[in-house]
Amino acid sequence: MATVTTRNGINVDQLVATIGAIQATPDVAKMTFKATTEWREGTHSIAKVGTFEHAGKTDTSRSAGQFELQGDEPPVLLGNNHGPNAVELCLAALGFCYAVGFVANAAAKGIELEDLTYEVEGDIDLHAFLGLKRSADRPGFTEIRVRGRVRAKNATREDLESLCQYVQDTSPVGDILAHPVPLKVDLDVA
Amino acid sequence: MATVTTRNGINVDQLVATIGAIQATPDVAKMTFKATTEWREGTHSIAKVGTFEHAGKTDTSRSAGQFELQGDEPPVLLGNNHGPNAVELCLAALGFCYAVGFVANAAAKGIELEDLTYEVEGDIDLHAFLGLKRSADRPGFTEIRVRGRVRAKNATREDLESLCQYVQDTSPVGDILAHPVPLKVDLDVA
Repeated sequence: MATVTTRNGINVDQLVATIGAIQATPDVAKMTFKATTEWREGTHSIAKVGTFEHAGKTDTSRSAGQFELQGDEPPVLLGNNHGPNAVELCLAALGFCYAVGFVANAAAKGIELEDLTYEVEGDIDLHAFLGLKRSADRPGFTEIRVRGRVRAKNATREDLESLCQYVQDTSPVGDILAHPVPLKVDLDVA
Repeated sequence: MATVTTRNGINVDQLVATIGAIQATPDVAKMTFKATTEWREGTHSIAKVGTFEHAGKTDTSRSAGQFELQGDEPPVLLGNNHGPNAVELCLAALGFCYAVGFVANAAAKGIELEDLTYEVEGDIDLHAFLGLKRSADRPGFTEIRVRGRVRAKNATREDLESLCQYVQDTSPVGDILAHPVPLKVDLDVA
């Protein structure tokens, strides 16, 4: 009888098989993800996330627009708190990304996790966003700080610190925050 | 009787007052936003977003952890689709950010919007995330493409294209994707 090796809730056999499939056919690693944002009123919009492209085909595990997110600003930024704002979503995304990386790589290394949290915060100055840019101002975060907390059954402090660094170095969201991404924008006027 | 100028659902009087307050006291522009991610199982985590710091004080318009987000991966990435993944959240955040910028600046300029959507997609290659890095690979998006669609009552195509460019240049999320942000990570081992 075949048994499935699951650790931290990660199917390690599938992880190993995925790595093997990409080594055999590099294009299996290519993904295109999507989100659509629709403005509602004032600072309130909704975003829909659903299907994505994987190795040139549309993944069928989700329906179109399966996940719906609310985005808004707090009153001090002219909104009504229907949801977190855009920069808060980026901080949450960084925590999600680090968590997935930590959990999956721990599973691959035989480390059994008990708890893992990431507290993420970022500083921003509104001058540039509001068109009041001074010489050194940028619109986005001037710094992002992360505090991870981890508890594992069978790993040393050094194991976990080394894994944390590895996760930082290979995190997709960490990468796109720490390094420039080419952004192309087109506008259709109806 | 005082009347409030609201356009596109944006309180234009409050927007003008906010700009004036920042011009008078630059530190009013300083914000620190936060998110906490807690791992659940496998690739599934939740993130909580609530209070934030504004001009050195904690904003009281939200309770702690008021907004809860689900983050997960699709089955092909070892998850169970409890929510969008981290990079999809970043794409949604970019759409939210562009929408807020467009709507608020349109309101300030007297442009009345009817519809506004942003479709955002990004290409990623999993080699680096999976530790299979080839020379040119990076963990995150190699390109992000955005298609905006806008309909307004009282603006020319040129007005809207100019506004779209201005929003790109002043978008906090656009900035942190297009330019490097300093990231500091600490780990507590329990």
